[in-house]
Amino acid sequence: MAKTMQTQIEVATPGQGLHRITGQVEAALADMRAGTGLLNIFIQHTSASLLIQENADPTAKRDLEEFLGRLVPENQSWHRHLDEGPDDTVSHMKSSITATSVTIPLRDGRLLLGTWQGIYLWEHRRAAHRRKLVLTLIG
Amino acid sequence: MAKTMQTQIEVATPGQGLHRITGQVEAALADMRAGTGLLNIFIQHTSASLLIQENADPTAKRDLEEFLGRLVPENQSWHRHLDEGPDDTVSHMKSSITATSVTIPLRDGRLLLGTWQGIYLWEHRRAAHRRKLVLTLIG
Amino acid sequence: MAKTMQTQIEVATPGQGLHRITGQVEAALADMRAGTGLLNIFIQHTSASLLIQENADPTAKRDLEEFLGRLVPENQSWHRHLDEGPDDTVSHMKSSITATSVTIPLRDGRLLLGTWQGIYLWEHRRAAHRRKLVLTLIG
Repeated sequence: MAKTMQTQIEVATPGQGLHRITGQVEAALADMRAGTGLLNIFIQHTSASLLIQENADPTAKRDLEEFLGRLVPENQSWHRHLDEGPDDTVSHMKSSITATSVTIPLRDGRLLLGTWQGIYLWEHRRAAHRRKLVLTLIG
Repeated sequence: MAKTMQTQIEVATPGQGLHRITGQVEAALADMRAGTGLLNIFIQHTSASLLIQENADPTAKRDLEEFLGRLVPENQSWHRHLDEGPDDTVSHMKSSITATSVTIPLRDGRLLLGTWQGIYLWEHRRAAHRRKLVLTLIG
Repeated sequence: MAKTMQTQIEVATPGQGLHRITGQVEAALADMRAGTGLLNIFIQHTSASLLIQENADPTAKRDLEEFLGRLVPENQSWHRHLDEGPDDTVSHMKSSITATSVTIPLRDGRLLLGTWQGIYLWEHRRAAHRRKLVLTLIG
């Protein structure tokens, strides 16, 4: 019979970019006595997102960061929502084409990630932030 | 022990853009006697999507709408799938880089959204549509 | 009471593009004696993704494929992560703006897809690959 468990964690980001959180998620999982099922990670923010991506090569990470910055450039004449600076409205845009939550399979309490997969928090704001994540486990 | 509940709702969209559905989702939840767990919202269409985004400032919403229109412009020479008009093929493209379903944590029957988060249906077609959503609750 | 079931399948892709896997997923589901709940499909790779999209018209599929290739072009001067060829880093970029997992509602063991929806594996690498998928069912 499936059970539900839920916890919240906070991640301190030093500013814009991909920040690996696999270890922090695994630590929270260990406390939840997980079985086989699904783990949902949900970020309670609209200017940061979650990503499962290449874990090994730092050039892959830097290319991804540069890619998103070029796909959604700041300082366009038609931008209106800029109360918090030039990175304000683009942070929401970046968030809208990436994930607010990721759902990952579990087997016997372990994340069934592929060999090269890690879990990242993608901070879209320039400044350091504290981001709240909800972890919900079914299984 | 986790239980499963499921219901379907319809959303009438007046045409292209972001339409807030948080209230409609919460009303359906109230009927489902939810506990703690996950709510999955799934849209049964390929030319509209779901988004969790900035709830407060209308300029954020307008910037997001303009952003997606500029990222995926109509009337490109290489577009082929245009049976239903110039907004046909681009609607599928927009749908492919946004979400067909969103999964949101619940605690004691309430959506654990962040302070600024609302749930939106993103209509990509120009004309008004009736869109079918499946809500599945585990917990 | 909700139960959890899990299985793994492999999909052989002939190379870059959208490959329909609805039939393979339905075959796996039939073996799992599913009820009402959710099916999560998770791809254990960072250079391929999953998509629920237009099932009927082949021009829609070709437009989507061309769209993603134009949105994330190869051979840009700022690309660094190219150990496995010009399609290496762009595969991760394409993966980062599409889905690593999809969650689909089930009723009485059947996928509650819309009339025009099919499930696709989106291969971003040029070469043929064998891709591993984890199917987790709650319900």
